[in-house]
Amino acid sequence: MADYILGVDGGGTGCRATIADTSGKVLGTGQAGPANIMTDMDTSVVNILSATDAALLAANLPVHSYSRITACLGLAGANVSGVAAQLQQALPFANSSVVSDGIIALQGAIGDADGVVVILGTGSVYISRRNNSVTMKGGWGFKVSDLGGGARLGQKLIEESLLVHDGIYKRTPLSSALLKHFDNEPHAIVRFAHDARPNDFGQFAPLVFEYAAQNDPLADKILKQSVETIEAALDASMHDDQPVLSLIGGLGALYGPRLSVRYQPRLRTPQADALTGAVALAAKLYTQTAQS
Amino acid sequence: MADYILGVDGGGTGCRATIADTSGKVLGTGQAGPANIMTDMDTSVVNILSATDAALLAANLPVHSYSRITACLGLAGANVSGVAAQLQQALPFANSSVVSDGIIALQGAIGDADGVVVILGTGSVYISRRNNSVTMKGGWGFKVSDLGGGARLGQKLIEESLLVHDGIYKRTPLSSALLKHFDNEPHAIVRFAHDARPNDFGQFAPLVFEYAAQNDPLADKILKQSVETIEAALDASMHDDQPVLSLIGGLGALYGPRLSVRYQPRLRTPQADALTGAVALAAKLYTQTAQS
Repeated sequence: MADYILGVDGGGTGCRATIADTSGKVLGTGQAGPANIMTDMDTSVVNILSATDAALLAANLPVHSYSRITACLGLAGANVSGVAAQLQQALPFANSSVVSDGIIALQGAIGDADGVVVILGTGSVYISRRNNSVTMKGGWGFKVSDLGGGARLGQKLIEESLLVHDGIYKRTPLSSALLKHFDNEPHAIVRFAHDARPNDFGQFAPLVFEYAAQNDPLADKILKQSVETIEAALDASMHDDQPVLSLIGGLGALYGPRLSVRYQPRLRTPQADALTGAVALAAKLYTQTAQS
Repeated sequence: MADYILGVDGGGTGCRATIADTSGKVLGTGQAGPANIMTDMDTSVVNILSATDAALLAANLPVHSYSRITACLGLAGANVSGVAAQLQQALPFANSSVVSDGIIALQGAIGDADGVVVILGTGSVYISRRNNSVTMKGGWGFKVSDLGGGARLGQKLIEESLLVHDGIYKRTPLSSALLKHFDNEPHAIVRFAHDARPNDFGQFAPLVFEYAAQNDPLADKILKQSVETIEAALDASMHDDQPVLSLIGGLGALYGPRLSVRYQPRLRTPQADALTGAVALAAKLYTQTAQS
């Protein structure tokens, strides 16, 4: 049996795996449940191997043939000290590298270039590569960070709409749309917010962009504030010698045109997704280990 | 046995009761567990009666002598439709009135005057009385409201300090103090924030005021923003013919001097606490029912 490479993209909502030949040609993909390595290492290992088996199966390769696989796994929480090393030891692959999910996203979006990638999904994370050194900012979670992410946009929209309901701020079409969603009943909002997870707040983020396209004053205000936080983080992350900037995640394409003119010349459409980035990094690892 | 009046101040953390004679003279007080009438009506009734019994006991009156009692209960969540009426029916007192905790706080702080009372504790609520009509704003909870409350101040402090940690904002003595509290370890902050309740965030609010007294730029920025939200709510709550403004709750006295000059002439130290307000309202109810 020949050697294979494996890329894994995993986090709290699930993990996806792609098996490829050593030239990088994709042979099969698979998915499985969450890989929350900070809170549940054992289940994470089970799900990572289950996604791997699904990929092997899809590629018509024997499952459990781990000893010929060189793997790169990009996982949320892998930057927490000790956790990545612990997982690496538990994995049965010939070689494996466990990195933060930001690293595979960076590789997928801009390849080997120097530059900055911003993940703008439910949360917001800034990943900067410069002279082979990678630094990350943000991504500390909904409650105390990630001001550019969809969860905070949705939360802010609800907050402002309640102030409109209370007669403190002026009504706009967007605040009316949000309040109508909750039947103009603030107690329904309170009940929603009590149990809401970041994703639940994030569902309202597209509404903000939709109304901003119609120059809704509340939508403009919310996005102006979040773009300011994104640009402050960019200014701290990006140097003149980093020619590429790429915004990824569900809101990346929506935010792009809203960044100030000075960022526009560097903006690039992402080349590929994070899973593809993991496969590319696994291929690099294979080349390195084959040479050593 | 003579008639008595009872005031109760209750919410999610506990309830307190005061028994008084019909002239308003306090005879005894007692306390018991939470009265969360929105989520657990049965337990609330048990705890309200248990606090009442403790007050009767302290007054050397026979416990369970409910049929001679006229009561006013101020409870968090009583403004949710139907809940107050449901509790009122379940109570064994001769007469009882169930009102929002804001109503007894208003009565305690400014008596019968027209004016505005702001509860600035973990959350923030605005209660306005004008020509015998009472309106309330805010108080929808930590996640989507209560921008002037201590929980939001503490959350904002942590958020800004993480941005300092990431090199996005400049360090100030306050951000250094906050980060040092978490051993300069952002993952410790993430773990804290994951399980933190509003009270847990609120513990950092006094730190913001403490550093603002030393003109810390971050403390000034955080308080400037929260004072703006408080003043916007005041401007929507207060009319020229409402001569009195009183800030109550743990942060009320700290916020007072920070309000703009135009609010200062109306500012009054609160006359009494919410429990005393409940007793006063129970006395009014007794007079009304005795006359009818």
